[in-house]
Amino acid sequence: MGVFDSGLGGLTCAAELMKLLPREHIIYFGDTARVPYGTRSRETILEYARQDIAFMKRHNVKMIIAACGTVSSAVLGMEAPAGDTPFSGVVEPAARAAAGLTKNGIIGITGTPATIGTAAYERALSSIAPDVRTVNAACGLFVPLVENGFTDRDDLIVKECVKRYLAPIKESGADTLILGCTHYPHLAQAISDYMGEGVRLVSSGAAAAVQAAEHLRAYDMFTDNTDKQPLECYTTDSEELFSANAGKFLGSGIDYTVRRAPVEEIIKGVSA
Amino acid sequence: MGVFDSGLGGLTCAAELMKLLPREHIIYFGDTARVPYGTRSRETILEYARQDIAFMKRHNVKMIIAACGTVSSAVLGMEAPAGDTPFSGVVEPAARAAAGLTKNGIIGITGTPATIGTAAYERALSSIAPDVRTVNAACGLFVPLVENGFTDRDDLIVKECVKRYLAPIKESGADTLILGCTHYPHLAQAISDYMGEGVRLVSSGAAAAVQAAEHLRAYDMFTDNTDKQPLECYTTDSEELFSANAGKFLGSGIDYTVRRAPVEEIIKGVSA
Repeated sequence: MGVFDSGLGGLTCAAELMKLLPREHIIYFGDTARVPYGTRSRETILEYARQDIAFMKRHNVKMIIAACGTVSSAVLGMEAPAGDTPFSGVVEPAARAAAGLTKNGIIGITGTPATIGTAAYERALSSIAPDVRTVNAACGLFVPLVENGFTDRDDLIVKECVKRYLAPIKESGADTLILGCTHYPHLAQAISDYMGEGVRLVSSGAAAAVQAAEHLRAYDMFTDNTDKQPLECYTTDSEELFSANAGKFLGSGIDYTVRRAPVEEIIKGVSA
Repeated sequence: MGVFDSGLGGLTCAAELMKLLPREHIIYFGDTARVPYGTRSRETILEYARQDIAFMKRHNVKMIIAACGTVSSAVLGMEAPAGDTPFSGVVEPAARAAAGLTKNGIIGITGTPATIGTAAYERALSSIAPDVRTVNAACGLFVPLVENGFTDRDDLIVKECVKRYLAPIKESGADTLILGCTHYPHLAQAISDYMGEGVRLVSSGAAAAVQAAEHLRAYDMFTDNTDKQPLECYTTDSEELFSANAGKFLGSGIDYTVRRAPVEEIIKGVSA
């Protein structure tokens, strides 16, 4: 299984996969030398996505998950983004999960400016559950907050940013909220405090992991590794920087290896 | 004259240069497809800096200014970073300006985590003015704040971030504060409100422009263009994204052209 993200947020999805599928060997790629993607133009995001997918394919993975809301939104509706390798983003699984959870039919969507700009979650929801009403919020500061360690639910800066971005969603009366970027689960406590206990949060990375596990089951694609292999990670920036930050996304007790794959190697063989 | 930065912050320096040297032709490069640099590892920053400098040199500029605190800090002390082309960062000019302004000998230094991690400003100050005391603050959220439009001096989030990061500098009694990243002048009002009127702010980009003008004067390198040429810009992300944001760094009334130079073109010919 291949999982990639612009940075480390997608490790949330990898960790969830390892819980659901302990016998699968997972290869993770985080493009830490070019993170974040969410404030870039669509053409640059698609170029990076093509390169990331090609890198994953060179590892002969049997399925690729783009555990990145920005990439998933940019490729939504594109036919076979990874050619003959099964491919999943996080948008459609998260939309499906949210549609199954809402009682009042009002769903809030959070994401990076690029993700919200594509209206990908709205499009996915309108085909899954046409009667649902959506309200969205482009939360440009959420990724930097998480990357700079501002995640404490009692931190005034965190609380104020959450309030500033989510007020329109709260006012709409949404009972379900999609965390449309794999960094956002780190702000889940602060978001839940603000939105109120009744509002269900949907982690897009976790939703993608659940759907991928179902896909493997449906198509009889399980691996039967008897040796538990560690998570195999690749990063475009330094291995030290990866290791310094991976823990907060992976949680404890997960073994992994990490190797640097410089941007030159990622770009190689993929024309612009 | 060549000026480059990880993103658009260096346009502050380019605009200052155009005021000081209205007859020079300025080429600006902003690596918007890979911004920010300030949270990356030293090896990645140096790799990007080498590529950026090589790109500038291909334009046959007579002098190169790294209008980026992160790059300037990483190359400080390196001999001839641009080979036989005169090169300036922002660290040494800003340190010189701050040393000339301080009355009580206490200087505060702000910058990205990477910049502060190198202690470049301290090293520059200790060779220029050994008796000066320095206090620094790594302000990881300042660049994202500016890039996401949070610059209003009355905004609670802006005020709280400024206070959180700058409290140790304020407590030190510093009378001079180096804005060690070319994004930070956009937070100057909020910073000044917090630090108090008596504290002098030094814009590293403006200081570099002043010193570059002195260099041209000293070495008789002025150009005598009679036709005023527009600022010639290159960007790794889309031209639209550049144009949408350039104005807030350039101010009004500056003509410029912009062309996309994709990352492949920047990397080309520079080995890792």
